[in-house]
Amino acid sequence: MYSPENAWYIACWSQDLPPTGVIGRTILDQPLVFYRTEQGELGALHDRCPHRFAPLSRGKTVGDNLQCPYHGLEFNSAGACARNPYGRPLRAVNVRSYPLQERHRAVWVWMGVAEDADPSLIPDFSYLADAPDTAFSAGELHIAAGFEILIDNIMDLTHTQYLHANSIAGNGMVHKVKPVTRETGEGVEVRWSVTDVALSPFHAKLHAPLERADQLSQVSWSPPTAMRLKNVIIPAGKGEEDGYIDLNAHFMTPETRTSTHYFFAASRNYHVDDRALNDFIADMRRKVFATEDEPMIALVQARMGDSDFWDLKPLLLGVDEAAVRVRRRLKTMQDEDQKEDRPVSETV
Amino acid sequence: MYSPENAWYIACWSQDLPPTGVIGRTILDQPLVFYRTEQGELGALHDRCPHRFAPLSRGKTVGDNLQCPYHGLEFNSAGACARNPYGRPLRAVNVRSYPLQERHRAVWVWMGVAEDADPSLIPDFSYLADAPDTAFSAGELHIAAGFEILIDNIMDLTHTQYLHANSIAGNGMVHKVKPVTRETGEGVEVRWSVTDVALSPFHAKLHAPLERADQLSQVSWSPPTAMRLKNVIIPAGKGEEDGYIDLNAHFMTPETRTSTHYFFAASRNYHVDDRALNDFIADMRRKVFATEDEPMIALVQARMGDSDFWDLKPLLLGVDEAAVRVRRRLKTMQDEDQKEDRPVSETV
Amino acid sequence: MYSPENAWYIACWSQDLPPTGVIGRTILDQPLVFYRTEQGELGALHDRCPHRFAPLSRGKTVGDNLQCPYHGLEFNSAGACARNPYGRPLRAVNVRSYPLQERHRAVWVWMGVAEDADPSLIPDFSYLADAPDTAFSAGELHIAAGFEILIDNIMDLTHTQYLHANSIAGNGMVHKVKPVTRETGEGVEVRWSVTDVALSPFHAKLHAPLERADQLSQVSWSPPTAMRLKNVIIPAGKGEEDGYIDLNAHFMTPETRTSTHYFFAASRNYHVDDRALNDFIADMRRKVFATEDEPMIALVQARMGDSDFWDLKPLLLGVDEAAVRVRRRLKTMQDEDQKEDRPVSETV
Repeated sequence: MYSPENAWYIACWSQDLPPTGVIGRTILDQPLVFYRTEQGELGALHDRCPHRFAPLSRGKTVGDNLQCPYHGLEFNSAGACARNPYGRPLRAVNVRSYPLQERHRAVWVWMGVAEDADPSLIPDFSYLADAPDTAFSAGELHIAAGFEILIDNIMDLTHTQYLHANSIAGNGMVHKVKPVTRETGEGVEVRWSVTDVALSPFHAKLHAPLERADQLSQVSWSPPTAMRLKNVIIPAGKGEEDGYIDLNAHFMTPETRTSTHYFFAASRNYHVDDRALNDFIADMRRKVFATEDEPMIALVQARMGDSDFWDLKPLLLGVDEAAVRVRRRLKTMQDEDQKEDRPVSETV
Repeated sequence: MYSPENAWYIACWSQDLPPTGVIGRTILDQPLVFYRTEQGELGALHDRCPHRFAPLSRGKTVGDNLQCPYHGLEFNSAGACARNPYGRPLRAVNVRSYPLQERHRAVWVWMGVAEDADPSLIPDFSYLADAPDTAFSAGELHIAAGFEILIDNIMDLTHTQYLHANSIAGNGMVHKVKPVTRETGEGVEVRWSVTDVALSPFHAKLHAPLERADQLSQVSWSPPTAMRLKNVIIPAGKGEEDGYIDLNAHFMTPETRTSTHYFFAASRNYHVDDRALNDFIADMRRKVFATEDEPMIALVQARMGDSDFWDLKPLLLGVDEAAVRVRRRLKTMQDEDQKEDRPVSETV
Repeated sequence: MYSPENAWYIACWSQDLPPTGVIGRTILDQPLVFYRTEQGELGALHDRCPHRFAPLSRGKTVGDNLQCPYHGLEFNSAGACARNPYGRPLRAVNVRSYPLQERHRAVWVWMGVAEDADPSLIPDFSYLADAPDTAFSAGELHIAAGFEILIDNIMDLTHTQYLHANSIAGNGMVHKVKPVTRETGEGVEVRWSVTDVALSPFHAKLHAPLERADQLSQVSWSPPTAMRLKNVIIPAGKGEEDGYIDLNAHFMTPETRTSTHYFFAASRNYHVDDRALNDFIADMRRKVFATEDEPMIALVQARMGDSDFWDLKPLLLGVDEAAVRVRRRLKTMQDEDQKEDRPVSETV
């Protein structure tokens, strides 16, 4: 497996799965259906009816069950056939169900051995849940590239000056200093910190009359695919926590080896009641990700083709240190996953 | 071969191949061209000019011949090069030709060994030919699924209550009783018969003031891919043949292992002169097949992928008996086809 | 290799690569980027940044360099990393660069061993450069077929009477006589020559009041994929060089085994200052190639599939002699290419 199965992945934002909502989504090559009953119960099942192989994700919730759209068999969240329109419930039948948790405004699914699904392994993104609605936004994009290329993209923010030259390119602070990378207990962190720089036009307008400040960008990766991105503008004489903080999040849920469900969220500690500003930030981010990052990342995947990243002998720069550390950690996890060799993908 | 080669398949409806008409169509992985000359003669040839491999189906009829669109060689319905614009006719050249029959308002092609092409093997659908034009309609759809899934779909009508819940779902009669399945001399038949049920709103409107009646649905499969579907509303005290009868037909002509030319027709014994009703029925059927059956059947194929149906260990219900009997008969025919191992696919 | 690597191919028309222009283009399966700096220098590099594998063809020229669109590394036309925004230039890094020549209004690239790139091997199409702008036009099309089918198409002009029956079909002169084929020192030539024929409506209108004339069509192929097409209308009593001459050119640059960059150009010796006529000819040619040749040629490729031309046992006519000689010459070149077995495709 190219990404660990024994891990929690975001399946969707909570807001995108309201009562009676049904979402079909492939994760780690497994077709899954996620749904929420009218009573609010969440379910995640293998997205294939065991009768005639119809996708359950085209069905609808009926009471506590998910009903197959083709011949009407109904399954509960444990995967049991709870209603058979043609006779007695079929006790021998079981669709594979997946452990689920709803945390930090998102639905998380555990793709590995069910008994190992420990909710405490979900990385802490409680700041997303704590943010007021007017200082929070979330979205998703389907990306035609492997999740590791997406992680690389965030671990090395120097790309912003080139790829985003016509949109969100800032004051070049990630080019002014060498980033500091460190392995944390949880994952890998990279940090750019500069003192007394001119704000970018965007920040200058937002935080007028402030014109110069210290500035910090910090990316923290938690295995396998969760990332926190913190940007801080720190007026002279203030501490980091007193600055203007954008606390964003990026989650790369692998669909296949070469495609990814990319989830992103934003929160901030300034103008937290400003809904118009919130909408502006959400729209800008989606547009930049969809029209600048996505095409480039898909082209990188296309240029790599089926090749392994290391086999292509990439030229590594100093700024790649954090991304390389992440790739090495992922490689170790993949190797361990293969050693275990437990049959976790069996489905009815 | 996934479907028997020594069999007759519908290539197109007669109405879709008028004089000078030319149709290119792949059947059982073989690219074929069907045409009718101005004089009405039918031809079926391998759809590849032996000269420069252009598709003859982009050409046109010239007298008794089909002319290649690229350099103008002409072939007659026996596949001989009847005219060479650059010299003498090329006697050594022969494009493979296929036996054809026009029956029951359709053009039938024999895909196997030519000398075995016995027209008496064409299943009897003379009721289609006998129907007046105002009580007959026919159409076709290209379906991204193997023909066996399409046969399953008709052999088990219980899907109508779910898949067609918002269109033609009826009074649930196929859910009120267990179907009776039997092997006939020719194929497999399944029959739902109920007494004294309320008509569906559609039928109630059509046959007012009739409100309740006995009702019958019967599907008869003839190998390899022809199906007759008979629906009857029988007013109290009448016999089956005195009821309101819809006598429909479904033909699944395999294009490839995972795609099918789906041909359907309708006839009836009531209001047989009502052209507006006839158009209404034709439009409704096409819409239901194209927007409800086709997407679901293509999704089932997608979920099955390259897997064999039985390898996926389908959950079989009582209502599947007829469909399962058909699949077993088809399997036997496929096995026999492979045993014979006669080289029937050779082309010039 | 299906086409010789040690050969010059047209990469683009000069007019399509102005200063600061950047074009990404796959040739012989190699993704290449072609660019021209503001100072006019041409470059051709492997189209993949050695850092993070972004396509350089999405970048832009900066001074003498091509800048990667993702993280800003800059490469010069020798493939050296001339600027590294994150530190010193990276001397060990080298992107493969390709020999280039600008000749005959086109940019030519040598796909093989660099030291063998002899500009004198570029076939002489100086008549294109010599033509005044008002008697010259050039264009290109991407064709979903192997280059050999495109060469066949031009080597046998008899197709014009059928494929172009509704557009440029002429007076049938290529059907009136057998073509004369000969091997020249350089390549293969085929020639149709007729005396005292009625002009086609198109030519009659163009050259009124001339109604009858001698007429000549001559195609000359230079290996591997350059073709000159000369059409002459010769009024009675004049010599060939005194006639109305259209001197066209066709270049088939292989993209992959089954796709081709098709470059075409036109020049003439009559009404050479008539810009409206020039535009009319350019538009007509593009339309005919795009709507008549391209679909047929792509269909031929589709019918051939992955098969080798000879394995399909084509029926060969007398008119195919020239095309067959070209295919045999190409086969010899391919065989020689494989024997040499020099590692020319290595890239950083």
